[in-house]
Amino acid sequence: MIIELINTGSELMLGSVLNTHQQWICQQFGGLGCPVDRQVAIPDSGEAIQQAVREALTRADVVVVTGGLGPTSDDLTRELIASMLKLDLREDPSIVAHIESFFSARKRPMPPNTRVQAQVPGGATVLPNPFGTAPGLILEVEPGRFRDSESPSLLIMLPGPPRELRPMFLNSVVPMLREKLSDLGPFQCKILRTTGIGESLMEQRIAPLLAPLIIRGLQLGYCARLGAVDVRLMSRGADGEALITEAESIVRSAIGKSIFGCGSEELESVVIRLLTELGRTVAVAESCTGGLISHRLTNIPGASAVFAAGLVTYSNEAKQMFLGVRAETLSNHGAVSEETVREMADGARARNKTTYGLAVTGIAGPAGGTAAKPIGTAFIGLAGPNSTNVLRQLNPYERESFKQATAQQALEMLRRDLIE
Amino acid sequence: MIIELINTGSELMLGSVLNTHQQWICQQFGGLGCPVDRQVAIPDSGEAIQQAVREALTRADVVVVTGGLGPTSDDLTRELIASMLKLDLREDPSIVAHIESFFSARKRPMPPNTRVQAQVPGGATVLPNPFGTAPGLILEVEPGRFRDSESPSLLIMLPGPPRELRPMFLNSVVPMLREKLSDLGPFQCKILRTTGIGESLMEQRIAPLLAPLIIRGLQLGYCARLGAVDVRLMSRGADGEALITEAESIVRSAIGKSIFGCGSEELESVVIRLLTELGRTVAVAESCTGGLISHRLTNIPGASAVFAAGLVTYSNEAKQMFLGVRAETLSNHGAVSEETVREMADGARARNKTTYGLAVTGIAGPAGGTAAKPIGTAFIGLAGPNSTNVLRQLNPYERESFKQATAQQALEMLRRDLIE
Repeated sequence: MIIELINTGSELMLGSVLNTHQQWICQQFGGLGCPVDRQVAIPDSGEAIQQAVREALTRADVVVVTGGLGPTSDDLTRELIASMLKLDLREDPSIVAHIESFFSARKRPMPPNTRVQAQVPGGATVLPNPFGTAPGLILEVEPGRFRDSESPSLLIMLPGPPRELRPMFLNSVVPMLREKLSDLGPFQCKILRTTGIGESLMEQRIAPLLAPLIIRGLQLGYCARLGAVDVRLMSRGADGEALITEAESIVRSAIGKSIFGCGSEELESVVIRLLTELGRTVAVAESCTGGLISHRLTNIPGASAVFAAGLVTYSNEAKQMFLGVRAETLSNHGAVSEETVREMADGARARNKTTYGLAVTGIAGPAGGTAAKPIGTAFIGLAGPNSTNVLRQLNPYERESFKQATAQQALEMLRRDLIE
Repeated sequence: MIIELINTGSELMLGSVLNTHQQWICQQFGGLGCPVDRQVAIPDSGEAIQQAVREALTRADVVVVTGGLGPTSDDLTRELIASMLKLDLREDPSIVAHIESFFSARKRPMPPNTRVQAQVPGGATVLPNPFGTAPGLILEVEPGRFRDSESPSLLIMLPGPPRELRPMFLNSVVPMLREKLSDLGPFQCKILRTTGIGESLMEQRIAPLLAPLIIRGLQLGYCARLGAVDVRLMSRGADGEALITEAESIVRSAIGKSIFGCGSEELESVVIRLLTELGRTVAVAESCTGGLISHRLTNIPGASAVFAAGLVTYSNEAKQMFLGVRAETLSNHGAVSEETVREMADGARARNKTTYGLAVTGIAGPAGGTAAKPIGTAFIGLAGPNSTNVLRQLNPYERESFKQATAQQALEMLRRDLIE
């Protein structure tokens, strides 16, 4: 099964945006046990799109094309592919109705050029787009037309915006691919998400233990992100499920406490779930992370039941007014100190009457470091029913990565207390 | 001048890493006025690399290949390309000396397999690598061998690690490209970033006005993101700069107030810059955006001088305690209402003694909507020295996109006041 991915967009060729579609779509195919064989990015111009699609169809069983399905003059994918395959375009009334309702729900007039998105090439399957106006399209290209094969190639066209493409891929494309891939035998993939152990150390700790299973067909992979390493266990074949169950139990014995979730689960969703299950609540006090911890927790539906408030106390005055941090503490120890973060955590808990107060203060940079407290220093405080504990961390990254890493450590500190 | 980029690496095909080489190298070529025409990513396997390089050489004047020059068993680029071009590999003593000194400077033994990096295909130019052991390589492929042309194609091989690739590209490749590109004449590109106008409406409003300039050689493009549309003006040739100046002035007359920045500038950095220049300050009160506005503002270095505090008041109690919202207001009008957001904005401003109080309350979903206030409803309040204003918006997206769109509208409301 050969898979090729074509990303269209002049903004990609100019480097104006990062091609996150490549990573995300490749992850999805990898998770289905069928990695992408080739990815191509090309500008919005006509000739390049047709040439790339034609070439891909000479090789691949599945060709995914992203972008160029929108309403503007540089959105040419639909027309160019129809013309290349000599298919007529016809307006689909149900898509017109969807576009009309999309605009009327927003109480905005429907611009006439948006109607072009209802044009469908003959024989295409339409993929609904609940989050936008351009539907996805799937064409079956008959065997022999571009390559010798026994089965048709699938040409899948998806809209460019990630918030439209991702749900469409998961809800409409994956079920169809699973069917097409079922001939290859069952495929199992389990991703264990961890935090607090680096990628090299992770490999040192688990790879030797898994070596006998690798001989039996286990595929082992790692994916390092900021503040998290995913361990990927994969296997194809009849005994794949047993192999992966055995591998997971070995990994859990070795590093169990560092595993916060499975699959695509995020640390913040685990924290919200645990708080909900245990009937506990949290208030957050942030300085250096600037609202990121609150933002991550409130991304999770249902957060409002367990997250009372977040106090982003950037100034010393705000730390005193909203959290009751004492002026002497700030002047004697500084805003970035164990003493200050302890009073922040206690203040957030007491004022909001929550089970927990979670607080961070640190030096995000690019300025403000000292020899004793260099840029990247962070203090994390967790006030609970029985005690208040403080962790000191060093995250010497640029500003945004510092915020992400520190927020991750703070959420992990809370998660560890919740599972104890 | 046709440019193609080939990124090798099985980790790219599995989605384990994001392909930052594509964006960075495309930006470099774009800045030289010669955008990359096609980018391809392929696994480390032999056949795929040779096939991709051969195809690129049938089309391109310049082919850049990244990765696979290192010492391990999956580093095959050098050997595969030499074999495809029928070139002998010979060990270069100066590279051996560099690798030896690299290890001796780090007081580490030189692993025997690193010596393979000193193998150079016949006729190649060696690019020094001060930050690693694998040198870059440039081959001139004679005209007529893969494509009809008057001049040879350049095949540029660069090592994969960004900290080695980037200085090598800037110091060794760019000077050579500048010479090769000087025949094409100057190139100009200007990106105007806007918010508040959708992509279709944007095209309706500016494309007809720019039509005469497009005939004269202006290239016009759009890039839609959540809550922002970039307008891209490009031109090549002697009068390119004048053409783009004229186009920018036409766009500014048509939609000037919606343009918040140029190039890669973000709305939050414009807001922080304007606050700093004007000596004003802001405090933020967030309900439905959950800390995202504070997070975005504090991503910008220097935010601490103008951003006093962010109050993420998710519960009614927090709105009363930290912002002084009255219980009657909450019970009479609800937490999501014009009256509540007005008191939130006023409270944030008064308690923090800032120039502005910026507040949002809304229904992020997936639950909580009513007929009068459906999911996606947001009220944005801005309290300033003279008055407090409220905007009502409808952002019917999934939860995270709702937060992004609402945060964008709130920041834009503040920016509009700052430029008045």
